[in-house]
Amino acid sequence: MTEYTEAATVGIGIFGSGRIGQVHAANVALNPGSTLLWVCDPRLDAATELAQKYGARATDNPNDVLSDPAVQAVLVGSSTPTHMDLTVQSVRAGKRVLCEKPLDLELDVIDAARADAGPDIEHVMVGFNRRFDPNVAEVHRRVEAGEIGQLEQLTIISRDPTPPPGEYLAVSGGMFRDMTIHDFDMARFFLGEITSVYATGSALFSDDARAVGDVDSASLILTNAAGVQCQIINSRHCGYGYDQRLEAFGSLGSLRVGNQRDTTVVFDGASATDVKNPIQNFFLERYAAAYQIELQHFLTSIASGVAPSPSFEDGREAVVCALAAQRSLSEGRVVALSEFGL
Amino acid sequence: MTEYTEAATVGIGIFGSGRIGQVHAANVALNPGSTLLWVCDPRLDAATELAQKYGARATDNPNDVLSDPAVQAVLVGSSTPTHMDLTVQSVRAGKRVLCEKPLDLELDVIDAARADAGPDIEHVMVGFNRRFDPNVAEVHRRVEAGEIGQLEQLTIISRDPTPPPGEYLAVSGGMFRDMTIHDFDMARFFLGEITSVYATGSALFSDDARAVGDVDSASLILTNAAGVQCQIINSRHCGYGYDQRLEAFGSLGSLRVGNQRDTTVVFDGASATDVKNPIQNFFLERYAAAYQIELQHFLTSIASGVAPSPSFEDGREAVVCALAAQRSLSEGRVVALSEFGL
Amino acid sequence: MTEYTEAATVGIGIFGSGRIGQVHAANVALNPGSTLLWVCDPRLDAATELAQKYGARATDNPNDVLSDPAVQAVLVGSSTPTHMDLTVQSVRAGKRVLCEKPLDLELDVIDAARADAGPDIEHVMVGFNRRFDPNVAEVHRRVEAGEIGQLEQLTIISRDPTPPPGEYLAVSGGMFRDMTIHDFDMARFFLGEITSVYATGSALFSDDARAVGDVDSASLILTNAAGVQCQIINSRHCGYGYDQRLEAFGSLGSLRVGNQRDTTVVFDGASATDVKNPIQNFFLERYAAAYQIELQHFLTSIASGVAPSPSFEDGREAVVCALAAQRSLSEGRVVALSEFGL
Amino acid sequence: MTEYTEAATVGIGIFGSGRIGQVHAANVALNPGSTLLWVCDPRLDAATELAQKYGARATDNPNDVLSDPAVQAVLVGSSTPTHMDLTVQSVRAGKRVLCEKPLDLELDVIDAARADAGPDIEHVMVGFNRRFDPNVAEVHRRVEAGEIGQLEQLTIISRDPTPPPGEYLAVSGGMFRDMTIHDFDMARFFLGEITSVYATGSALFSDDARAVGDVDSASLILTNAAGVQCQIINSRHCGYGYDQRLEAFGSLGSLRVGNQRDTTVVFDGASATDVKNPIQNFFLERYAAAYQIELQHFLTSIASGVAPSPSFEDGREAVVCALAAQRSLSEGRVVALSEFGL
Repeated sequence: MTEYTEAATVGIGIFGSGRIGQVHAANVALNPGSTLLWVCDPRLDAATELAQKYGARATDNPNDVLSDPAVQAVLVGSSTPTHMDLTVQSVRAGKRVLCEKPLDLELDVIDAARADAGPDIEHVMVGFNRRFDPNVAEVHRRVEAGEIGQLEQLTIISRDPTPPPGEYLAVSGGMFRDMTIHDFDMARFFLGEITSVYATGSALFSDDARAVGDVDSASLILTNAAGVQCQIINSRHCGYGYDQRLEAFGSLGSLRVGNQRDTTVVFDGASATDVKNPIQNFFLERYAAAYQIELQHFLTSIASGVAPSPSFEDGREAVVCALAAQRSLSEGRVVALSEFGL
Repeated sequence: MTEYTEAATVGIGIFGSGRIGQVHAANVALNPGSTLLWVCDPRLDAATELAQKYGARATDNPNDVLSDPAVQAVLVGSSTPTHMDLTVQSVRAGKRVLCEKPLDLELDVIDAARADAGPDIEHVMVGFNRRFDPNVAEVHRRVEAGEIGQLEQLTIISRDPTPPPGEYLAVSGGMFRDMTIHDFDMARFFLGEITSVYATGSALFSDDARAVGDVDSASLILTNAAGVQCQIINSRHCGYGYDQRLEAFGSLGSLRVGNQRDTTVVFDGASATDVKNPIQNFFLERYAAAYQIELQHFLTSIASGVAPSPSFEDGREAVVCALAAQRSLSEGRVVALSEFGL
Repeated sequence: MTEYTEAATVGIGIFGSGRIGQVHAANVALNPGSTLLWVCDPRLDAATELAQKYGARATDNPNDVLSDPAVQAVLVGSSTPTHMDLTVQSVRAGKRVLCEKPLDLELDVIDAARADAGPDIEHVMVGFNRRFDPNVAEVHRRVEAGEIGQLEQLTIISRDPTPPPGEYLAVSGGMFRDMTIHDFDMARFFLGEITSVYATGSALFSDDARAVGDVDSASLILTNAAGVQCQIINSRHCGYGYDQRLEAFGSLGSLRVGNQRDTTVVFDGASATDVKNPIQNFFLERYAAAYQIELQHFLTSIASGVAPSPSFEDGREAVVCALAAQRSLSEGRVVALSEFGL
Repeated sequence: MTEYTEAATVGIGIFGSGRIGQVHAANVALNPGSTLLWVCDPRLDAATELAQKYGARATDNPNDVLSDPAVQAVLVGSSTPTHMDLTVQSVRAGKRVLCEKPLDLELDVIDAARADAGPDIEHVMVGFNRRFDPNVAEVHRRVEAGEIGQLEQLTIISRDPTPPPGEYLAVSGGMFRDMTIHDFDMARFFLGEITSVYATGSALFSDDARAVGDVDSASLILTNAAGVQCQIINSRHCGYGYDQRLEAFGSLGSLRVGNQRDTTVVFDGASATDVKNPIQNFFLERYAAAYQIELQHFLTSIASGVAPSPSFEDGREAVVCALAAQRSLSEGRVVALSEFGL
């Protein structure tokens, strides 16, 4: 299982050996344009386990990664509070960075990082993988090509199969910064700059969410300066799996992304017909291709020198949307993003 | 519930007060262009019950209907062995005739009727209602318009929900003349004249069918002179309802008729998604519109004087196909329709 | 086309011979339980034309209808500002009333009518036909039966094919009272009493809407006391027809109503596959069955003496929702229905 | 891109560097359980090009492969006339063999090879990849589990996007041995032993097919001893792509495999709604997963010592079906497989 190629590959270090770190590690190993060199995690045994799987080295010290000249780029998949510090250190060490979402829960931390990192911040990419989902990417391309005329309304349905554990909820920053953050980026991907956010939410089923003052079900309306509307519908649970749909409505028609299944098999029986299988139930399965294409985009941006997209600024704006949504929910009013100095 | 209209309506007599007679009676009553005058059935009480429902007269004597000058047209929905006799009598009495399928089980009876009826036979319409189903009619129109290029293969799936009772099977003339007869007409509707028939069949589940030497599951291949192929797939039962599909494949694409449901409701749950309701389970429900449009076509042909379609000849040709299929099944070979003197 | 029946039918008078009056007239004529006696319209020629079609009498004087003892019930399908006056007069004359939506644009007019009509107001039915659509009714029934567990989110998409003329928009009372009124009733049908309304809207394409200060695209979020959320998505135009969808999401699954087509025909070609026909483009076609079943419900409530549903109060509450939405839109905040004295 | 693993991998040699050889080479490289050692092709430059891509050695001499003790297994993807000779040589050299379909065009060649290879023939696997397609495998598993009751009818639709070049058609052995061979195996996969074959076919559009006396459109009916029927519908072209469908109808319901698309995107517009993208157009794309799973099955059979499936006998039986179909077409009759000594 060796692919012989003359092309130089990009040496990669990964911060974080959790779920997303594991996805990235596998994709780095699979991609002929990248080589996994380091896995860094404060839990050294976890780092070691993941590193060994792909013939990389393990450490619990970020400096080992950042001081290795063979490392050209890092993937920051550690816990959220460490994102900005590792990003800044990596940029300063001359590394290209792909940082997971959200950049941070607090805007001032993000802004301080931006200041500290300097102009190379423009080469930091943020891990909004859904932009690279082939379904989403196709709808975006066709909307941009004018197939549905002028975009007027965008509906995003995004529901997780099951709520995260209570201990995670307590430090998640709330549903909007933790889960809706992806949908804010989708809204921005299609509508451009968001100017106002309306949010409502309730804790309908999760005692854990209620206990920490969070919601488990939310509905939001975002608008841009032109008055284009985006509805976001969220739930922390979903009886039929990982519900990920998107519908772009324009003056001439509509383009929709549906849920995915592993096979095309359909059943007809006495009490039900055209029965399809459950939808893909896990984000790593649903967005497997998206993560691979995201990595390829990152590698291509390194090779070409063209700044990657979504950018650090995209990551920051999504957090602003989340903060605006939180304010809207608590104050029961529309919140203009200009309140956040934009 | 009275509609006032100046236009003269067509006075109608119906032979047969069974299932199909009841459908016709209701449609005649509903159609502003027709008035039900007589219901005739050897079972006078059945005739009376149906006649009273629509303010018509009942009789067990066909002459009462045929001698009434107000009767312009008759619908022959009596038992198959009476079709030809009543048709001939009606034509001779100067009535327009819509005769149910099959015209008769035997070709010589049909041919004798044709000879007896004289040239007015061209005004006899045969009740192949499926030609008037809006789905089938649309596919036919679009195929004729060239939307799929040259027609190359036609697939007809036709399955009844449950087999008829054993006593009916015994006198039905066999699956091909009783049930497949509709599909033979569909094949001719799309392919024109059929030149050869291949048939295979088995009694897979019905002891009744087996007992009378009939099959309950059949597969047939018909071709026309140009080599266009038609597959017919039949079953006397179907666990998910009345399966009525058709697919026209041409050099440029395909047009398909699917099964119908009463609502568009779809369910998503843990073990199954995109679940639709059972399909319409009964031919009177599935083809309700077809029967109404068929009647309208008959009334229009009377008003215009243009010979109706499907014609008596269409009815005869479908029977020839059925006889050829029977011969093919029993002799294990392709049967050319020319063997029947065509 | 006469149906002979012993049962007494309900004598009906119709106020208004416009689009909806014509629908009602046809359905009254079709229903064996009702007889159309009068059509009343200030435009006497229009009343006469419609009345003649069904053998009824025409007048421009409501008293002719209300003083006729054969008239048991009236259908109020006249222009909105006349709804309450005709309803009150009819109730006082001892007639049963089915009044079109909205009851009135102003809450005080509705409340005055309620006071004037007295206790028989409970027999006034309001014409929210969508409750009787077989698709909606089935989803409602299955939600009530617990098939999706606890209802948590309801999404209603409701888009008209094309905007009404400018002169109509000017007197329509605005999108929320004119068009969204149906969706408010749908929300109440599923969620029960609404407690808060959020609305946003823009005039994205209609100069007529902009000229009268109205919106043509709107997104709303309603909640009930339990925190169940309802998203409403509206547009005054839709490139692919009359978009009428509804999705009920509960703790165990989801039930959806899709758009309807006249046939099941599907096309496969080189550049597109599984292509279906345009959806039904006109509300009278899309909701044809709903109007018939609505009338039947009204007739049954008359026969049984059981108060009809949706009731006058349902009609009033939908107007309150609309007024709350208008206030939300203009003030940029969540509006509690308690602000309207509920 | 190196995966470190302690497990020994299976050394593989590939005969043939054409389209299928390239697929196998990529999958062998991708699978951690196998290592590509040799590519052998009479066109040495082609062998070299493919071998270099995966760090393997190239040769035009089969003995180089067969005498290498590191080669445990071979994949025979060379031209059809060489299949049996290479298979026999490989078996005699102690190698495990996965041989592409058809084994050979002639039954006597296959039977001679069987005799020559000796008892180790039971470890020869034949490359009927469709059995491993996740869609087909799921339907097969659910049919076996009794989900649709007793299987009664199986419908296979199999159409290529475009006909092969004329020079290929001339040596292909005819449509039944070249293309339908896959469908014969599908029929056997679901129905078990086939007892009779009916075939009809026409050259409707391909002058090349007509020139060599072949057909381009075919319809077949196969039955097993229990009377279960299998319809096969073939075309050498298809305007909407690579049409690969299968429908299993049983006493309780139906299970269907549909065509695959790269995304779930759907478009609604003025003239067409629910529009999906073209289906996957190429067999390597449509069956990409099938080829990978097939290889895995082969590797697992080597590791476990359990004879692989589909077996050499399965390969032989599919050829018998094809020969029976040819005889049926030329003689216009049902052909019992017992005519071939079964």
